[in-house]
This record gives sequence, C-alpha cells and structure tokens, in this order.
Amino acid sequence: ATLLLSRSLSTDRTAIESKMGHSPAQTYQFTVLMVVIHTIFLVLFGLYVTFDEEYAMPNATDDNTMLNTKYPNYTDTHVMIFVGFGFLMTFLKRYGFSAVSINMLLACVTIEWGILCRGFLTEHFAETGKITLNIEQLLEADFAAAVILISMGVMLGKLSPIQYVIMVLIETPAAIAAEHLVEHVFKINDVGDSIVVHVFGAYFGIACSLAFAKKKQRGHEYDGSIYHTDIFAMIGALFLWVSWPSFNAATAEPAEAHHRAIINTLLSLVGCTITTFLTSQLFEPHKRFNMVHIANSTLAGGVAIGTCANVVLDPILSLALGSFSGVISVLGYIYLTPFLSARLGMHDTCGVHNLHGMPGVLAGLFSAVMAVAYPKERFGASLSSIYPAMAHDGQTESGQALMQLAGLGTVLGCSLIAGAVTGVLLRAPFLNQVRDEEYYADGDYFHTPHDYDFTTRIAERIKHVSVLDEEHKTKMTMA
Amino acid sequence: ATLLLSRSLSTDRTAIESKMGHSPAQTYQFTVLMVVIHTIFLVLFGLYVTFDEEYAMPNATDDNTMLNTKYPNYTDTHVMIFVGFGFLMTFLKRYGFSAVSINMLLACVTIEWGILCRGFLTEHFAETGKITLNIEQLLEADFAAAVILISMGVMLGKLSPIQYVIMVLIETPAAIAAEHLVEHVFKINDVGDSIVVHVFGAYFGIACSLAFAKKKQRGHEYDGSIYHTDIFAMIGALFLWVSWPSFNAATAEPAEAHHRAIINTLLSLVGCTITTFLTSQLFEPHKRFNMVHIANSTLAGGVAIGTCANVVLDPILSLALGSFSGVISVLGYIYLTPFLSARLGMHDTCGVHNLHGMPGVLAGLFSAVMAVAYPKERFGASLSSIYPAMAHDGQTESGQALMQLAGLGTVLGCSLIAGAVTGVLLRAPFLNQVRDEEYYADGDYFHTPHDYDFTTRIAERIKHVSVLDEEHKTKMTMA
Amino acid sequence: ATLLLSRSLSTDRTAIESKMGHSPAQTYQFTVLMVVIHTIFLVLFGLYVTFDEEYAMPNATDDNTMLNTKYPNYTDTHVMIFVGFGFLMTFLKRYGFSAVSINMLLACVTIEWGILCRGFLTEHFAETGKITLNIEQLLEADFAAAVILISMGVMLGKLSPIQYVIMVLIETPAAIAAEHLVEHVFKINDVGDSIVVHVFGAYFGIACSLAFAKKKQRGHEYDGSIYHTDIFAMIGALFLWVSWPSFNAATAEPAEAHHRAIINTLLSLVGCTITTFLTSQLFEPHKRFNMVHIANSTLAGGVAIGTCANVVLDPILSLALGSFSGVISVLGYIYLTPFLSARLGMHDTCGVHNLHGMPGVLAGLFSAVMAVAYPKERFGASLSSIYPAMAHDGQTESGQALMQLAGLGTVLGCSLIAGAVTGVLLRAPFLNQVRDEEYYADGDYFHTPHDYDFTTRIAERIKHVSVLDEEHKTKMTMA
Repeated sequence: ATLLLSRSLSTDRTAIESKMGHSPAQTYQFTVLMVVIHTIFLVLFGLYVTFDEEYAMPNATDDNTMLNTKYPNYTDTHVMIFVGFGFLMTFLKRYGFSAVSINMLLACVTIEWGILCRGFLTEHFAETGKITLNIEQLLEADFAAAVILISMGVMLGKLSPIQYVIMVLIETPAAIAAEHLVEHVFKINDVGDSIVVHVFGAYFGIACSLAFAKKKQRGHEYDGSIYHTDIFAMIGALFLWVSWPSFNAATAEPAEAHHRAIINTLLSLVGCTITTFLTSQLFEPHKRFNMVHIANSTLAGGVAIGTCANVVLDPILSLALGSFSGVISVLGYIYLTPFLSARLGMHDTCGVHNLHGMPGVLAGLFSAVMAVAYPKERFGASLSSIYPAMAHDGQTESGQALMQLAGLGTVLGCSLIAGAVTGVLLRAPFLNQVRDEEYYADGDYFHTPHDYDFTTRIAERIKHVSVLDEEHKTKMTMA
Repeated sequence: ATLLLSRSLSTDRTAIESKMGHSPAQTYQFTVLMVVIHTIFLVLFGLYVTFDEEYAMPNATDDNTMLNTKYPNYTDTHVMIFVGFGFLMTFLKRYGFSAVSINMLLACVTIEWGILCRGFLTEHFAETGKITLNIEQLLEADFAAAVILISMGVMLGKLSPIQYVIMVLIETPAAIAAEHLVEHVFKINDVGDSIVVHVFGAYFGIACSLAFAKKKQRGHEYDGSIYHTDIFAMIGALFLWVSWPSFNAATAEPAEAHHRAIINTLLSLVGCTITTFLTSQLFEPHKRFNMVHIANSTLAGGVAIGTCANVVLDPILSLALGSFSGVISVLGYIYLTPFLSARLGMHDTCGVHNLHGMPGVLAGLFSAVMAVAYPKERFGASLSSIYPAMAHDGQTESGQALMQLAGLGTVLGCSLIAGAVTGVLLRAPFLNQVRDEEYYADGDYFHTPHDYDFTTRIAERIKHVSVLDEEHKTKMTMA
Repeated sequence: ATLLLSRSLSTDRTAIESKMGHSPAQTYQFTVLMVVIHTIFLVLFGLYVTFDEEYAMPNATDDNTMLNTKYPNYTDTHVMIFVGFGFLMTFLKRYGFSAVSINMLLACVTIEWGILCRGFLTEHFAETGKITLNIEQLLEADFAAAVILISMGVMLGKLSPIQYVIMVLIETPAAIAAEHLVEHVFKINDVGDSIVVHVFGAYFGIACSLAFAKKKQRGHEYDGSIYHTDIFAMIGALFLWVSWPSFNAATAEPAEAHHRAIINTLLSLVGCTITTFLTSQLFEPHKRFNMVHIANSTLAGGVAIGTCANVVLDPILSLALGSFSGVISVLGYIYLTPFLSARLGMHDTCGVHNLHGMPGVLAGLFSAVMAVAYPKERFGASLSSIYPAMAHDGQTESGQALMQLAGLGTVLGCSLIAGAVTGVLLRAPFLNQVRDEEYYADGDYFHTPHDYDFTTRIAERIKHVSVLDEEHKTKMTMA
C-alpha cells in the first residue's frame, strides 16, 4: 500500500486558468471600465462639486455644533459600511478576500457616483448648477453605499469584479431616483431609510439574482462557512449592531427626534436579538443555535424600526416591533429561503431577504400604522420635520398612511424592475463570468496564499479520518 | 499495513446526543423561560417605561448639547459590551460561537432587565410611577450588562444557555440593589463603577463558580486557546482598551471632571500596559510573554483608576496606580489563580479575579486614600458632584474615606452571597447542564461547520508528526 | 511501507533554546531597561506634568464644547493606533502575537515619552516649568506613537522586544525635535502630519532597516501570510481607512477647516481605493488583485492629502491627488520594493515606503503647490491658523511654498540620519538579537499554543497532497 499523490493542486490551478477567457477584451475589460468611469467621475467632480460655503469654506462661522452632532453618527455609519458589511460577508469559507475587498471597492465607487447622482437631483443644483458638500452629503453617500452592499449580499460569490461594478452603475441612480420620488413627491417619512435603502437594496438584489440564476449557484460545495469564518462574520455583525442607532438617527431632526431615534433603535435591536436566539433554538434541529441567524437576524430590529425610529413615542412599541422582526427573520431563514430556492430557483447568498427584505417591508407597513396612531398635535414642533406634508400641506393622518404605503409599493416596484434588468444585462457573455466551479471562491480573482486550499477545502474533508489521533498513530507506526 | 479509519466523528456526535437529556422539560426549558421573561419585560415596559419628556419627546427644546457629550461615550461603551467583552472571550479554541453569541444574548436580556430594575429604584418612579428613558439610562443599562459579562467570564464554558440567563435574572437586581445602597446611602464616589460593576461582577462570579464547582471543570482538554483564537481575543482586548476612558468618564460631571477622568484613565492604562509586559516576561518560563496577560492584565489599569478617575488631580498618581495594577494582575495569573484552583477548587475561565477582582478592590482602597488626600476646597464646584455628602451633608474627608471602604465591603459581601446562592441554584438537576466532556465547547448548543473538530481539536494533536514535511513525503511516495 | 515520525517539533524547540543566549545580561536586559525607563518616566511625570487648569482642574468652567469636538477625533485616532496599526501588521503568518502586542507596548511607551518630549519643548514649559495635559496632548501623544508604529512596520519581525523599545527611545525625541523645527521655525502647514509623522516614520524605518540589514532577512520562509492572517490584517486596514478623516482633521481649526479636512480626506481615500484596485489588477500576474495592495495602498490617499487636508478648496483636487497616490503606491509594491531589495538589500516588511513614504513625500510636494495655488485672501480668517507666517509675518505665497519644501527636506534628512544611527546601534551584539531562522516568528518571545506550527507552517506545506480527498481515501483504505 502506498500513499497516492494526486495531481498537485497547482497543476489544477494552471489547468483551470487555461479554461478562463483570455481574450484581450476579457483581460482588460475591468481596467477599461474603471479608467473610464473614474475619469468621468473626476471630470464631473471638477465641473460641478464644491464645498458648502456655510460650513466648509473660508469665511464660514467658527462653530462646530452641527459637526459635533453629525460626525459621531457619520463615523459609526462609516464603520458599518466598511467594517460591518465587509466582515459580515466574510462568512463564506473561500470568499473572505473578495467579501471584504469588493465591499470596499463598491462602497467607494458608490460614494463618488452617489454624491453626483443625488447632487444632480437637488434644488440647489437646479438653481446654481453646483453640488455642495458638507458632512450630510458624506452621510447620504454612505447610505447610497448601503443599498449596493445589501444587493451585493444577495449576489455574493456569483459575480466577477466588473459585474459588481456594473451593478453599482445601474443601481445607484435607480435607488436615488426612487428615493427622490417617494421623499419629495409622496413626502414619506423614512428616517432610517428602511424603505429607500433596505427594501430597495434587498429586492433589487433578489430580482437581479432571479434573472441571473444558474443551477450551479445552488447547493454549491463552497457556499458555506468554516469555524473561523463564522467568527470573522461576527465582527461585522457586532459593529453593525452597535452602530445601528447612529445610522437610524443620523438625519433625524430636531434634537428630541434624534434622541428618540437612538433609543427606539436600541430597543428594537434588543428585542430582536432576544427573539432571534429564542426562535433559532426552537426551530433548529437538536435545539442548537445557528450562527447564520445570530449574525444576521439579530440585526433585523434595526431595519424594522428604521422608517419610524423618530416617530414611535412609546418604548414598548419599538421593543415589540423588534421582537417580531427577529421571529420572522429567523423563520425566513429556516423555511422561506429553502422554499424560494426550491420553487423559484432563487439564490440569496447572505439571506438578505430575511435581514433587509422582510424587515424592511415590515418597517414600511408599520410606518403606515404609526401615521394614524398618534394625533398630529402630539408631535409638536417635530411635525414639520417628521411629516412635512401634514405640517404644511394639510395632509391628514390617513392620507399620510396611504402615502407611506404608496412609497413602499413604489420602491418595491422600482427595485424589482431595476434588479431584473440588471440581472439580465449581467448575463452578457462578453462580460467576465465566474466559472461554475469557482462560485463563492477567491482563487480566480485574488492571489491566495499557499494554504488557501488546505484551510478552506481540505481541512473540512478530514472529518472522518482520525489517522492523526494519538491512539491510531501508534498503530500506524507499528504497522 | 493500512490506514485505519476510526469511528467517524459524526457517529460520535450521534452517540453523544443520545446521552443528552431529551425529556420535553429539558428540550423546551430555554424556550419557555425566554418566552416568559421576554413577555413579562414587554408588559412591564408597556406599563411603566416612557421617553424622557425633557430630551426625547415632542416639545423638548432643540438642543443636542447633552447628547453630543454623552453619545460618543455611549457608543464606545456599547462597543466594549458587545465587541470588547464578546471577542475577549473568544480565546477558547472550541467556544468562540458561544462566547461571542451568548455575550450578545446576555447583554440584551440585561439591558431590558436592568432598565426595569434600576427604574423601579429611582425617585422619579416613586413619584410618578414611570421610568423615563434618555441616553443616560441606556448608558446605565450597558453598565448593568458589564456586571453580567464579567461574571460570565468566570463561568465561561461551564453553563448552558438557560443557566446563563438564570444568572442574569438573579445577578442584575442584586447588583443594582447593592449599587443603589452604596451610592445613595453611603454616598460613595465610584465614577467608573469599579466597585459596583467590576468588584460585584468578579466576586459574584467567583462565589458562583465555587458553589458550582465540579472537578472536571479544571484541567479540561478544551480549556485553552489555539493560535488564531488568541488573536481573536485581542480584537476584544484592544477595543476594551481604547474605549475604557469613555467608560470611566461617561457619567463624570462637571466638564472638568469629565475631561480629567478621560486623561486619568488613559494614563492608568498606559502605565498598566507597560508593567504587564515587564512582569509577564520576567515571571514566565523562558522569559516569554504570555498572551493571556497581554489580553487581560493590560486592562487592569482601567479598573484600578475607575472609582477615582474624576478625583485624581496629579497625573503621576494615575500612572503609578495603573503600573501597580498591571503587576498584581500578572502575578495573580501566574501565582494566585493556580493556588486558588489547587486549594479551593476554584475555576475562573478568564481569570476575571486578576482583571476585575483584585484591581477593583484596589480601586476601592485607593478611593479611601484619595478621599483624605486632597482638602475639600481643591475640588471647588466639583465637590458637589464628586462627594455630594461632603458638599451638602457636612461629611468629613475621613468620614468619606470610611464610607468608601464600607461601600467596597458591602459590595463584596453582597456579591459573594448572591453569587454563592446562584451557584447552588444552577446545580439544580432539572436545568440543562453542560456534559463533563463538553465543557468549553460549542458543539452541544451550536450548529458547527464540518471543520470544527479538525480546526480546534485535531490540528493541535499533529504536533509530533511531520509526515507532511516535504522531505518525508518523498520517502513516503517511494516506499 | 511505514509512516516516519521525524524528531518532534518540541525537541526542535528545546534544541533551539539551547542556541539562544542565556547569559544573565541577555536574560534580564528587557526587564532592566523597562524598569529603568518606566521609573524615570514616573519621576518626570511627578516633577513636571499637571492637568490643564483651563479644562481639567477644579474651578474650570463647565463647558464640554472643546471636548465634544476633539474627543470623537481622539477616539478614532486611538482606534487607529491600537487596533489599526496593530491588526494591519498581523498579516505575517507566524508573527501575529508580536504584531498586535508589541504594537501596544510601543504605543504606550511612546505616549509617555512623547508627552514628556513634546512638553519640554513648549513655551508653557519654558515659562512655568510645567507640562499641562488636556485632550490635545493626548492626541499629540497618539501622533507620536504613529511615527514609531510606521517605523515598526519596516522593522517588523526583525527586532527583539528590547530593540524595539530602544528604537522608541531614540526616534521619539528625534521626530518631535524635527516637528518642532519645521512647525515653529519654518512655520509649515502640515495639518494631518503627513510630513512630520508619515515621512519621518517611513524614512527613519528605511534608514534603520538598511543599517540593520542582514541577508537572511530577505526571502525568509516566514515572511509571508496565510489565508486567515490576510483577513486579520484587513481589520486593521479598514479601521485605519474609516478613521483617517478624524486623524487628519483632529487639530484643524477653525471649524470650516476642520469640516473641510474631513471631506478632503474622505475624497482622497475614495479616489485612492479605486485606483488601487485598478492598478493592482492591471499590473499583477493573471490580472488578480493582491491583498497586500488592498490592505495598504488604499490608505495612501489618507497620507497624500494629510498635509493639505485643511487647505484644498476644490474637491476635485483631493480626489485626483488620492487617485494618483493609489497608483504610485501599488506600483511601488510591484516594482520599486523588489528593486530596492535587489539593489540596496533593503527589506521593508510592511512596504511602509509605499504606504507612508512616497505618499508622504507627495503630500509635501503637493503642499508647496497649494501654497501658491490659492491667493491669501481666499482663506479669510483661516489664514492665521493655516499659514500663520502668511497671516502675521508677511510671508508670501511662494515663500510659504519654499518653506513647505524646506520642511519636507529637513524632515527627510533628520529621519534618514536618526534612522541610520539607530540601525547601527541596534546591531550591538550585547543586545538580544532575533535568530536568523526565527525572523518573522513569535516562538522565541511569546508562549505559543500547541497548534502554532501546524497552523502557520505545516498546513502550508500540504499543498501537493490530496491523500485526504474523498476519492483517494477510498483507494487508500482498499489498498
């Protein structure tokens, strides 16, 4: 008997490369696209973007008050975008480099593109031809990035870098246009952006995934975690969790609504976390917790309260809403995701539908209830920030409620259409496509260290072998 | 000769499960308890908890000043609770899922339960029947969570989820009652909560551990780290380290005491870190640093200065106190912990006694010295916040010093009694108990990926085998 | 055929130890040095350091405004120093304990030593004989630590703990003296410290490395990453990335310059990140991204904009400068570093020259251009903070530009000389030197868990063996 050495893995690697497209068009398409769009962005910034005269140019008054309020919320949001989303997606055993890196690339492209798209829609641009920057535009650019990163969670491991970037180019203006519509025409309240960010990002991703679906994407060998990657994912999850109150409160005004948005978000997250543990253990085999739920469903409370974080005037409501969102998120992972996969062939790598999709829809529905739940006068001076149409345009409570639902429906519709179109476009054969056997794997797009295969593929297969156990080693050497 | 395949580990797993209690009472007890307590909490929140009218309800003034001061301290504290404590406890090689997840669950249960317990004790509740929420209540809820997570560090790996939750239910009101007693009756100064949080949490845990002790908990195969888990633990340690000034200063008033509390805490941590490295290398075999000390003892300075972070008026004192606390913490790990384990059968998974216990007692003793060290008039207007009894009730310096000692003693006594009672209760045989062979391991309570055993158990046993070294592989293939 | 067991690795370890110097002078030199310097620091703090009367002592006014502006910037900077630098350096497969721990030790020693060195140079000390502390001194102490940690990046894995500490003792006063010279005599603007921190730290490290060079330091078996350590490094990289605006803006005044410094830094980082991905993919073999670039070059934009973050009045300039810095940083890694290694024998473990060196020089050159690009009057009241010499001493735009260049040249010169001298001193044979075979490895200075060798050395060698693949396992058992 002898130990057989198979073809070395590096031979595999070479064999693999020969199968990859190596036409110049395929080799250089990422480079060309990035040079073109980055140059266009630079030109547009040069033509149109300036600093805000009031806060960020010489001769402004020397007062840090606005920055002192917004900047801590901004840095927390920034941590969510780059560390939170990035590490949450490192749970895939062979896709850690891509998760954390492509997350960073897409966020940066979206920050540029989002500043431009949103700027072009402002009244200020219509009047002056200029897009002005202060800390609020940076915040909103991060929110635009959140939309993309949510959709990325659905498509994670299935797109090549150029496909991800094309997704950004289409999705960002679509999301910002939809947001502009529902906030300026329907005048909805969506302080934590659960409708315009979470619902849009999730359903765009889902429609895109459906349109892009291939059978090999489901049940793939690499679509799973190993022990340490689940812990890496918790870094992302926890930073999202602790920073979420800042995300929801960042644009809330006046001060009391800002303060309340923080507390409501915290309470919703707390309720959600408790029911996530409860539900996960109850419905999983062997009554064991599932780390997928703990890294994801615990965050559903932040989404569910988002639209109304500035509205809710009774702490119990936040706690109850969060608690409910944890339950539906976990049940979504256990029952709905497998069902949609089996029936519709839908693949959702991160279970974004359970973390952002359903809780986002819940947020929208809840906001309609809230619009009629409290009489106008209870909001006092806040009314004009929370429901401007009710304060200035004579909108009624039930009218506002209908607008909230119309806004939700509009965002759902826009995101599904835009996502489906994008999914079809991404199938274009001249675009670099991920090879079937390399879905959810870094190897084709990143230089990987020598232990890459061992750590992420071979170690997992050793589960039935205990040749290395002390007791058997002895026998082996004696044989 | 042949390679022998042992029973597969998954067979082991099934065998193992058959040994676990599977009576319905044991299967569903976590679910039932969580549903019951979460429902009760929801009802109590509905009945009693409202937002603070002054800051978080409509018609409050539009002024963010208080929030701008407190919120950055709150977010740092929040990071400590969820990321800091959570990751610090991931050092155990097979208990990473539990450490970071159960940490999150207990923190959330304590935030709810702590808001209620503390609220019921306020004057405002006595007068109005309502518990009001603003950012300060959230901060204090996080402090309540810190108590629990410190005790969890002692019990880490030895309790089932339901046992952890029961610990929270008992410890939270006990800790808050003790705090109320020493702060409102003895009127001690304990700005960074070293006495009421660190001493209480540590000695509660120690008493609980002693009462709960079983021989198999000591010298257990799984009670240790692997290379990457020690690095995961440093994520927690470093976020605790950098955020500690915010923790100690969060409730310090007026502005100068707040400012000073930040600087004193930083200086104490800096001194402590230097002596930790010095002492670790000097007293360890082969003059090698020990990561346990570096992840834990470097934080002792934050505990030691906590009680007096607002008092100390000379930077040298903070630096010296921190330096001393690093020495005793490291020596505690090297000499005291093994001694207590051998003599008392005490098992303290994270060495909480060395990080929170002794440094917390040091903080209390130091606060008595500080009370007499500076004459009253040096504190100016601060006196009424720092030592209200001295400002308003004619308390003398030495009287205050005695009160500080009485407060420390009271907290020690309460925590030891409450902890011991809890430890006895947790032995109740109808509660799910961790199996002896599965202490410090995730497998019974979490779904673990296929590589779980390889990564955390088998890899470690390969230390004597170099069959995989290039040179021998050649021989092997030739054989 | 039989499986051969080689000498156990633990036998290796013992053999190895016998080769290490074990004279008492070598065994205790770290202890003695640390006791001596820490004692001296304590005495100097006792003699000279007090709290700032205006902000941090009783009878100061109760106003948190200054702290509310500075403290969030401070905590972000603090995260950069301890988490950012620490984890960025964990990429080495066998040096993670050292990276994250020695980073912490050196930062703490530098905080003490930096407060003293900088304090002795202040006018306030000259007048009163006292060094006063408020949040600004803590910020500047963290900046001093950054200098050291940048140099540590060059020397990473090549020094013993005592050598690292000696480097701190020499470099800190040298860097602070150079900074004092260029800021107070040449009156340069360097708001984000790119010249006085990044250029100094990088070229000090490079000169030190050249003077300390040994052939065995290059091409070393352990000088590389494994899969998970590259992901650990991204924790550091991302926290550096998200916090960099706080670093550059922390000392910017007045409010508008502070606000603008945040936006300019963000834009520069965004541009830099995009060109890093673009350039990395274009110039690397197989068009694959390289994690070294993604963890390091994406940060070059923060360095490049540092000196002028408060000056730039057109967003396009920041974006373009950042974009350019990403390109030169990546090309530096791909072409310059191997060239310098081959020609000069220079070894730069983290590629500090590409992240801090060249982008820092670029920042200095750019600042000269900026000094003449905008006429004085555009800066309004800011002029006296941004260019005090132009505001008060009649300095001209071109004169200021020359001073910026003179400052850059001076810092370059000082850092190269001080670094070279340090490198020569560190060769002293009576100092503990890292053994050739243990460069870039924790084993000699840290207690390592049993899996240390397996995880970081053996796993990597299994790349050609697929004995564990399911298909072959079957054959094996049948054989």
